[in-house]
Amino acid sequence: MRIDVAFTPAGLGASDLTGRTVFVIDTLRATTTICTALANGARGVIPVESIDEAMRLTQTLERKEVLLTGERHSVRVDGFDLGNSPLEMTGPVVQGKTLVMTTTNGTKAVLATTGASSVYLASAVNLATVGEVARAAAATTEGFLVLCAGRSGAFALEDAYTAGRLILESLGGRRHRKGLNDAALVSVDLARRYGTRWLRPLFLSAAGRELREKGFQEDVVEAASESRYAVLPVYADRRISLQGVPAVATSS
Amino acid sequence: MRIDVAFTPAGLGASDLTGRTVFVIDTLRATTTICTALANGARGVIPVESIDEAMRLTQTLERKEVLLTGERHSVRVDGFDLGNSPLEMTGPVVQGKTLVMTTTNGTKAVLATTGASSVYLASAVNLATVGEVARAAAATTEGFLVLCAGRSGAFALEDAYTAGRLILESLGGRRHRKGLNDAALVSVDLARRYGTRWLRPLFLSAAGRELREKGFQEDVVEAASESRYAVLPVYADRRISLQGVPAVATSS
Repeated sequence: MRIDVAFTPAGLGASDLTGRTVFVIDTLRATTTICTALANGARGVIPVESIDEAMRLTQTLERKEVLLTGERHSVRVDGFDLGNSPLEMTGPVVQGKTLVMTTTNGTKAVLATTGASSVYLASAVNLATVGEVARAAAATTEGFLVLCAGRSGAFALEDAYTAGRLILESLGGRRHRKGLNDAALVSVDLARRYGTRWLRPLFLSAAGRELREKGFQEDVVEAASESRYAVLPVYADRRISLQGVPAVATSS
Repeated sequence: MRIDVAFTPAGLGASDLTGRTVFVIDTLRATTTICTALANGARGVIPVESIDEAMRLTQTLERKEVLLTGERHSVRVDGFDLGNSPLEMTGPVVQGKTLVMTTTNGTKAVLATTGASSVYLASAVNLATVGEVARAAAATTEGFLVLCAGRSGAFALEDAYTAGRLILESLGGRRHRKGLNDAALVSVDLARRYGTRWLRPLFLSAAGRELREKGFQEDVVEAASESRYAVLPVYADRRISLQGVPAVATSS
């Protein structure tokens, strides 16, 4: 069993990904926001690299079924329908819609998973559900990889802590160090250090402090709501949707 | 005061470096090896990116004054005079010589510091000496940046632990978290977790385990010799040499 963590997509080699189960984490805020949107009835989320690509793709789709979603420098992109706040993703707004989404770090991390056999999105808000999948993956020879979005190519405390919490879930309480790479060892250390107190690492992190300064304090609190949603977002065929939910959703 | 850590060169933006004091760490093994070579009388070390560049550069120098030095996959490059082991850097071998050196991670990290105002090399073996410089830098508004070499673009436990130890030295026992970036906070956590027991993180790390498997166990032990040498290697004008030591050394 191997459990690897990559603190940023830049640290990934192709060999890390190929044929493996991958969990993508961007706790503040993309994977939290996507979990929330899907839990509240969004049909799917299409992650794209750039604002231009989001605009172009949207023109090829039925406009009233699409929500242009995303941020730059933490705030909603001009002309977009939604930003990157989980609090925006309410049922009345997102139900039955497809979100075309671009964010600074999270959507890039999802797009960096080419070659993986399965890609799931993880955050505090779906920890128990995604933890079950991680537990099954930990029982295989290949184990799994946790890909943290990080922050503009650098280490992000909140993602590493979330990665550690996910690994602890996958180990089901066993104290296991063998097969963990250096980043996984440190992530587990962080999870043990902060225990279940999500707010501490989230508000200590540079991302959390910036969100507070920009008036998104409630987003950080929301991102700390452990296992609030029993959702398992899967990325496949360029689209994130719920495992087991048909592509045509229940909006009608 | 700002104290930043970058776990790999890939996480560095130009803005992180410009005008700043930078400490480069590759505990296993390049910065340990370079400190040892300079402590034992080497005139200087010229870090280069590739084996070809090392060969070409050596042809332009007086051959008997040069030692071709470096590794790939932890072992000495074919045709080179020396590998990347601190145990090879004895006085009789290196005194008065210039080492042209290329390694998988460490020399690349040194070369990634373009734009910095001062660049020092740090490791366990010169911790006290380099810690004094870090302490002075911590007293300035700009603070300093610790650049970890990492391992093929990924996080390396031993470098992060060393970074944490250096930061604790710079703080002189003060419990200070403000101004530290996320990676610096985690590095300090690691330093507190392992205390002064260098061998634990060094042998736990992937690099340490690989060195042990390849028969370099004694290198890891050597790399754990805290403050064995009172040397301050400085990188300037494409060359690493001792602070305060004239470019023409005392070999004659």
